Amino acid sequence: MDFTSQQRLDDGVLERRFTLDDIPGVLWTPEPARTPSPLILLGHPGGLDRMYPRLVGRARHCVAAGFAATTIELPGAGDRPRSEAVEQARADLQRALRAGEPVPGEVVDRLVLPLVEAAVPEWRAALDALLALPGIGGPVGFSGGIVSIAVRLALVEPRIAAALLFAGSVVPTAILADARRVTVPLLMLLQWDDEGNDRQMALDLFDALGSPEKTLHANTGGHTGVPGFEGDDANRFFVRHLV
Amino acid sequence: MDFTSQQRLDDGVLERRFTLDDIPGVLWTPEPARTPSPLILLGHPGGLDRMYPRLVGRARHCVAAGFAATTIELPGAGDRPRSEAVEQARADLQRALRAGEPVPGEVVDRLVLPLVEAAVPEWRAALDALLALPGIGGPVGFSGGIVSIAVRLALVEPRIAAALLFAGSVVPTAILADARRVTVPLLMLLQWDDEGNDRQMALDLFDALGSPEKTLHANTGGHTGVPGFEGDDANRFFVRHLV
Repeated sequence: MDFTSQQRLDDGVLERRFTLDDIPGVLWTPEPARTPSPLILLGHPGGLDRMYPRLVGRARHCVAAGFAATTIELPGAGDRPRSEAVEQARADLQRALRAGEPVPGEVVDRLVLPLVEAAVPEWRAALDALLALPGIGGPVGFSGGIVSIAVRLALVEPRIAAALLFAGSVVPTAILADARRVTVPLLMLLQWDDEGNDRQMALDLFDALGSPEKTLHANTGGHTGVPGFEGDDANRFFVRHLV
Repeated sequence: MDFTSQQRLDDGVLERRFTLDDIPGVLWTPEPARTPSPLILLGHPGGLDRMYPRLVGRARHCVAAGFAATTIELPGAGDRPRSEAVEQARADLQRALRAGEPVPGEVVDRLVLPLVEAAVPEWRAALDALLALPGIGGPVGFSGGIVSIAVRLALVEPRIAAALLFAGSVVPTAILADARRVTVPLLMLLQWDDEGNDRQMALDLFDALGSPEKTLHANTGGHTGVPGFEGDDANRFFVRHLV
């Protein structure tokens, strides 16, 4: 892990950019450091530069509650090499959506499963590197999307003690099967009027999740309209389970 | 309105029992009084004595956040006179549930609509009397069930500025129509595994509600298994909208 730049934000947050095996990432920590901060992994749909304004807002909110926050670029997003097969699946998905047709399960599988298979080991490698830094402690929370990555990580990575899932993308059947075996406390956020999201698919995923403690927060509004108070709810959820 | 008894609870709460036109009720206020406290109406399924332990717990939680809280007995519950027609509808409902059959809409209508028609004017009369007391101010929140009473009250009573709906009872089609015209901020609580509640009916009601700000909190567990943290979430919801 190589730190490539750092800056102090104006509200007591140190932002450090890094690369880990050519994967770009960002780490936000309290400044001055409080030791050790539980770590929140911030999920996103890919494209760190495009997502930066929203990510830094979420990260500041995490740090204000005493957490460190981090994220890494997704496979095939930003400047990372594209997978031809995944791009073909994305085109197939968008064609079905434009035509108002149901998205075939095999298209969902071709789009999401390779992403999950590639991303999960990268997030775990990032955890190995980040948890070795001074000032970063366990346990770890995952917060955001892509929801299939979150579910698989929550299932296979024992250092993840709680997860906030942002329901906003199609879910392969294999991930529904994973979901039944997840046991960590979960908070799922659902935007009730999300144009690009299948509400029933999200409710089916919530129903499938095996965790004894799971909570769904659904709000009116579209994909990017999550109300500000959900940021506070998210912090309280992670404080309950990570602190 | 006649106060019939009062006692000081051990955590700075004054509990006063009252009757209003032969309807028994309870009022909980901060002691010593802070003036004026916004008022939360605590809904329940009927039977004040049976429900008292849970009601006083909810009331204490409200008072701890700076609210006054109150409730009145429902028509046909506790010692109040039964309606033969409603009791017949309740028996019809229970027979259908025991047989595992869908509950006919006309049974739901016969059970719930007379209760709504009778209860809503009583809650409004209670508001008239309670808001005239020193130390009780507006605005007013409704919190709990029966969800159909909550929806009708939120629609017709302008002093209600926010409502927390506890989804746990059958909903007539006429109330779904009311729901589309409700505009106050709403928080709906749904117990995902509620044995006696139709989950899809609750989701349909949430979908129908017309309020620009509405939030659904769904949790694993049965009807009485609402997690303790939802009490804090409820207080924060009412602080956002009533204070």
